[in-house]
Amino acid sequence: MTISDSEAGVRLALRTPASVDIFTRILTHGPIGRIDVGRQTGLSQAAVTKAVAPLLAEGIVTADAERPVRATGPAAGRPVQPLRVVPDALLVLGIKVNVDEVIGVATGMTAKVRWSAHRTIADSRPETVVDTVCAVAAELIALLGADAGRLAGVGVAVSGDVDSASGVVRDSPLLGWHGVDLAAPLRARLGLPVLIDNDVRALTIAEHWFGAGIDSGSFAIVTIGSGIGCGLYLNGDVVSGSHGVAGELGHLPLASMEAVCVCGRRGCVEAVASSGAVLRAVRDAAGAPQLTIGDAARLARSGDEAAIAAFDRAGRAIGAALAVVANLTGPDTVLVAGEGMQEFELYERCIREEFTAHAFGAAADCVLITRAHTFDDWARGAAASLIRAVVRQELHRI
Amino acid sequence: MTISDSEAGVRLALRTPASVDIFTRILTHGPIGRIDVGRQTGLSQAAVTKAVAPLLAEGIVTADAERPVRATGPAAGRPVQPLRVVPDALLVLGIKVNVDEVIGVATGMTAKVRWSAHRTIADSRPETVVDTVCAVAAELIALLGADAGRLAGVGVAVSGDVDSASGVVRDSPLLGWHGVDLAAPLRARLGLPVLIDNDVRALTIAEHWFGAGIDSGSFAIVTIGSGIGCGLYLNGDVVSGSHGVAGELGHLPLASMEAVCVCGRRGCVEAVASSGAVLRAVRDAAGAPQLTIGDAARLARSGDEAAIAAFDRAGRAIGAALAVVANLTGPDTVLVAGEGMQEFELYERCIREEFTAHAFGAAADCVLITRAHTFDDWARGAAASLIRAVVRQELHRI
Repeated sequence: MTISDSEAGVRLALRTPASVDIFTRILTHGPIGRIDVGRQTGLSQAAVTKAVAPLLAEGIVTADAERPVRATGPAAGRPVQPLRVVPDALLVLGIKVNVDEVIGVATGMTAKVRWSAHRTIADSRPETVVDTVCAVAAELIALLGADAGRLAGVGVAVSGDVDSASGVVRDSPLLGWHGVDLAAPLRARLGLPVLIDNDVRALTIAEHWFGAGIDSGSFAIVTIGSGIGCGLYLNGDVVSGSHGVAGELGHLPLASMEAVCVCGRRGCVEAVASSGAVLRAVRDAAGAPQLTIGDAARLARSGDEAAIAAFDRAGRAIGAALAVVANLTGPDTVLVAGEGMQEFELYERCIREEFTAHAFGAAADCVLITRAHTFDDWARGAAASLIRAVVRQELHRI
Repeated sequence: MTISDSEAGVRLALRTPASVDIFTRILTHGPIGRIDVGRQTGLSQAAVTKAVAPLLAEGIVTADAERPVRATGPAAGRPVQPLRVVPDALLVLGIKVNVDEVIGVATGMTAKVRWSAHRTIADSRPETVVDTVCAVAAELIALLGADAGRLAGVGVAVSGDVDSASGVVRDSPLLGWHGVDLAAPLRARLGLPVLIDNDVRALTIAEHWFGAGIDSGSFAIVTIGSGIGCGLYLNGDVVSGSHGVAGELGHLPLASMEAVCVCGRRGCVEAVASSGAVLRAVRDAAGAPQLTIGDAARLARSGDEAAIAAFDRAGRAIGAALAVVANLTGPDTVLVAGEGMQEFELYERCIREEFTAHAFGAAADCVLITRAHTFDDWARGAAASLIRAVVRQELHRI
């Protein structure tokens, strides 16, 4: 195994599926003893030793002699020198494109943020976005200084139907894009491998490798905010959808058929539960078209009935949607996150009531975790998606 | 590789994950050339040759010298002797427990039905069901004659929340069972390995290995009848649910909240779309509590407005449920089956209208297949579930 920089973008040369599995286990579960790596990957100790030796020699992986842990299982009690990945052996950039902003982070292999950079955009035309992504990347590269030589590539997260293999954003209603090749111009200008991914899928990868989903066999992330999204991790991988569409929780017909969604359909969860839908309802009731979502939340907290009703209606749709995820896919853990979490206490009662009313049998046993979530988390998701592609040797195949 | 009958139940001793993959590919895709087996499993030709040699020697797999096919891909044009599994090298029983009937089939390794047997039951108490399953199994074993010595085990399919690892039916509302250990008494009386599985999950395995899902990367089966069920195959396996619950399409809150389900919840799909719900609506409207589902269908076909409305309402709930499956999990293929398919033309228009109205973007591109379905198919599902456990070496671990 070697790091090769014969092409643009430093890469890991993990040559066999077994070495990819072993490295992934050390990356996501380190520090971890060799015996546990073998047990958890189902590979022999010989295979682990063979895969780890060159990683140790090249400084990608380190054995923490100063931090011995006790082995678990049959070899319990024997002190071991646990393996872990050297976080900064490779670096990546993760960038999230919003409708009004481009957010970037620079991270090491474990998706820990070292630097971040934000730029607002006046419009979301593809040219504007490409220019701004390049400017944010340049800013992060400058912050990395000499370390930028260890960059493996740039992950970019966009909402909508994204074809990662071709780098084309097939359809992004939020950005107003149809068939936009985002990867090609970015690769040309940045001189680095570029991976475009759906934002919720990228976030799911981040949570699976480095977050709430790390030891979960099956989990779901539900994001509440300007859209209602869902990432599913089932049977060992993120659910991508055979036609590029999956996790479209915001467009399940769980709301009243009188509610018309921005997508044009009736009864979508987003039609009552997106921050925009809540805001519209509060503005209409108050006759105050200038209210912000912060104003709407303040009204609800101060007891305004129309504002409370708008958040309740959103919470009921979200709660029903969570029950659908549980009844249909049976995750052990559901993480509710997104920028809407700032007002979560306004949704929470109705979310939980509706979930409880419709979760079927043992599906109700799934653990609901709620978590504040920053815009940087989306960019970190893009970084995690790129890290996974680097480890799985997929980046230079795209 | 050997067939061992040192314990009850003939078994395949596939010793490595690679040999399991190779055998599975030959079983599900045979006749198939060695080169294609290697290409499709991602294993080397040497690995294929090594795994296949003992299978050929023992007559589990055969090379069809008399049926050469042309290789595909890089070796295109070269005649090859395709490999296939000898269907009757191992035999299995598959048994479906209904609320009023036990249905059994005897099949070979490719789940092709050789014999079937049915018995009605007066009640669905566990003792009655165990007695009847044993009687049906005995009838099938008698029909197999000397071949019964090649039986690998008995698969039993039950609706509800089933823990296959322990053989316990945790919760089956249809049978009125809670925490019933079905495997232990059957193993004791039959002297064969027994695998209990959820009926829809078993059907999904059958379709994935031997049916509509054979070359599908992700597919869903939706069953219409006395219940509305769903089996999902995603990321290389059936979705089982971390708490044993998944695919509960019948209990998604997509119907009017005025509709009360047999499970006690409001708004469930089954509350308007099960054959029982349709029948109740037609009976109530006609003031004729003795009507059968066949009578209800005849009324709808003859233009009775209340009967048509009942089937329409069912169709709309099922169509919305199909859109939920597509939007959330993005399968390439959805197979609609079940005993309700006999009246499918009465549901179809509303199913398709509602699916089209709510399928999001490219999720609408999934292929909807409809198929008539017999009760034997459920028993065949139980057989397929057992075959898979035999191949994956899971049966004697349970």
